[in-house]
Amino acid sequence: MQKSRLEAFSDGVIAIIITIMVLELKVPHGVELAALKPLLPVFLSYILSFIYVGIYWNNHHHMFHSTRHVTGGILWANLHLLFWLSLFPFTTAWMGENHFAPMPAAIYGFVLFMAAIAYYILQRTIIAHQGPDSLLAAAIGKDWKGKLSPVLYLLAVALAFVNPWISSSLYVLVALMWLIPDPRIERVLVKRERE
Amino acid sequence: MQKSRLEAFSDGVIAIIITIMVLELKVPHGVELAALKPLLPVFLSYILSFIYVGIYWNNHHHMFHSTRHVTGGILWANLHLLFWLSLFPFTTAWMGENHFAPMPAAIYGFVLFMAAIAYYILQRTIIAHQGPDSLLAAAIGKDWKGKLSPVLYLLAVALAFVNPWISSSLYVLVALMWLIPDPRIERVLVKRERE
Amino acid sequence: MQKSRLEAFSDGVIAIIITIMVLELKVPHGVELAALKPLLPVFLSYILSFIYVGIYWNNHHHMFHSTRHVTGGILWANLHLLFWLSLFPFTTAWMGENHFAPMPAAIYGFVLFMAAIAYYILQRTIIAHQGPDSLLAAAIGKDWKGKLSPVLYLLAVALAFVNPWISSSLYVLVALMWLIPDPRIERVLVKRERE
Amino acid sequence: MQKSRLEAFSDGVIAIIITIMVLELKVPHGVELAALKPLLPVFLSYILSFIYVGIYWNNHHHMFHSTRHVTGGILWANLHLLFWLSLFPFTTAWMGENHFAPMPAAIYGFVLFMAAIAYYILQRTIIAHQGPDSLLAAAIGKDWKGKLSPVLYLLAVALAFVNPWISSSLYVLVALMWLIPDPRIERVLVKRERE
Repeated sequence: MQKSRLEAFSDGVIAIIITIMVLELKVPHGVELAALKPLLPVFLSYILSFIYVGIYWNNHHHMFHSTRHVTGGILWANLHLLFWLSLFPFTTAWMGENHFAPMPAAIYGFVLFMAAIAYYILQRTIIAHQGPDSLLAAAIGKDWKGKLSPVLYLLAVALAFVNPWISSSLYVLVALMWLIPDPRIERVLVKRERE
Repeated sequence: MQKSRLEAFSDGVIAIIITIMVLELKVPHGVELAALKPLLPVFLSYILSFIYVGIYWNNHHHMFHSTRHVTGGILWANLHLLFWLSLFPFTTAWMGENHFAPMPAAIYGFVLFMAAIAYYILQRTIIAHQGPDSLLAAAIGKDWKGKLSPVLYLLAVALAFVNPWISSSLYVLVALMWLIPDPRIERVLVKRERE
Repeated sequence: MQKSRLEAFSDGVIAIIITIMVLELKVPHGVELAALKPLLPVFLSYILSFIYVGIYWNNHHHMFHSTRHVTGGILWANLHLLFWLSLFPFTTAWMGENHFAPMPAAIYGFVLFMAAIAYYILQRTIIAHQGPDSLLAAAIGKDWKGKLSPVLYLLAVALAFVNPWISSSLYVLVALMWLIPDPRIERVLVKRERE
Repeated sequence: MQKSRLEAFSDGVIAIIITIMVLELKVPHGVELAALKPLLPVFLSYILSFIYVGIYWNNHHHMFHSTRHVTGGILWANLHLLFWLSLFPFTTAWMGENHFAPMPAAIYGFVLFMAAIAYYILQRTIIAHQGPDSLLAAAIGKDWKGKLSPVLYLLAVALAFVNPWISSSLYVLVALMWLIPDPRIERVLVKRERE
């Protein structure tokens, strides 16, 4: 089965998700700078989610770069990931419009958590299909980022009821952790191509 | 004629359909978990339709994988399928927002039925074009799933006026039936490539 | 310059145009079949515009299939066409929501007319670039459909103020005229490939 | 790393941005030509932004045409550009709906300015990666357009508080300056291919 259509379809869905989030920035009625002020939390949560979706697209790109064949299981694990990503515009808007209130901040983290789990399942499905010589398994190594992130998300969900700003800070922290594109897969790929 | 543009265009349309459905999850005004409760039926119908669109994309992928050439007839049969799929966001929202009331549940099934018919027409158009040695015809075999589904949809439409939950259960049942990616086409393709 | 990105971008824009038109089918509040009745004119105009966008995508597909190189002029002529196509959702909704009133029906035709002119300009730009041996010029021949359509659109615009149903009938007529995919380009391409 | 997915993803995002701007053309309730009159400033700002997005897509196309490899830095510089472009629908609508009032006209220019800076950063990132023989560096040469544009945007932002029509005229002027597709990269590419 071709991986190109899976990539094209995922690119399409991720491109739409990243773009429709901006529709939540409702055009204000006033014409003064002050009219933009109530939009600030929505704008900040938009930036955060834009970066998260960018990270997912980036990692998705890397993951499938080290994948040759696509099976039915991989297709559905990928759709499962896209499902959770598709909820980002909703949770982003809910959190932003309510100025990072506890419950919206917790639900935002819960969807981040589920997307991380879905990403992990997709990764394991590909590795299982690639077998013992899995290029992807070699590339991700111990995957400490992939294992730490869901733990931090859960922590952020719980701490949202103490102080949602702790949660927001954790979301920013995890994003920064991933923001630097992962050199592991590139390194392994380059190494294997030389062999 | 190239099939790549037909695939790219279909991927684009399907990616947009699957993503705009989420816009029906209107951001609630409250900030408690209870504020999400009225969204539950909308969310459930979103999950169901997401899976259906995923199934169509998956099968579309398989179908065109065993297709070499694209004719004008195939182009229009494909657009006809996309037309019915494009109505999914509408019927999903109508059914979800009205808590699976009889008429919306029936119309939801009617559009599923029409999409199934459109898929069938597209399949027959490709097979007719491929001639007696049709790879697709060999791959789908007796196509009992393709023949059973429209019957179950019609049944669900009728039973919606008895109890719409029977209809919903039938929609879930048909989705489960298709959820497992069809190994037939893969098997035949693999077999032919070996010959 | 590569034509693949121009095709991919155009496919994306056309896929979005064809899909966002369906957002004008606002989910009704009632749950009876009667609740769908006011949507009927919107639905009919959606079908008409869906077919028109399908025709444009189809013809665009054929046109670029007989095009090798893309120049700056072709890029902008293409964007100009996409601009007019992007107004289809607006004119479709205005006409549909006002039950084919004279002015909306006339404006609908005017945008169809401008899209036809933009298509014609794009076609001439490609032919001019291809020079005297233009494959596209040979393929379209006398292009009577391309020349007749804008005349019929203008006629429909004028007649909208007499009776908008005459205009609507003309729009349906032109769509039917194009619906059959144009065998001319395919024929010439096949012929040339044999030579 | 493949550049094809970066191009496909960017095409998707840009296609969606250019198309959702048209959603701000809200369908009027009236059916007379006068009902369209209040939409005129929204329509004019739509045309302006459509051309700007077209220019960005066009230049993006050229820039990556002279790029072979994509690094993590290039990916993120590209996402940064897409972020600022994604704000165009918002600033376009705010400016259009408020008839080019000073603050919306200034913010419109500010986002244009940030997009220009993001484009410049992306360009420098690619050139730094390509090294001393950079094809892109040779192609853009002194890049006076790229350097003049942000200056004119800043000027327009400041002058918006004197008279927003001066700003609008400057936006139109910069657009016209870019509208002619840049022959520099094409020329250098053609030259190098001949060598």
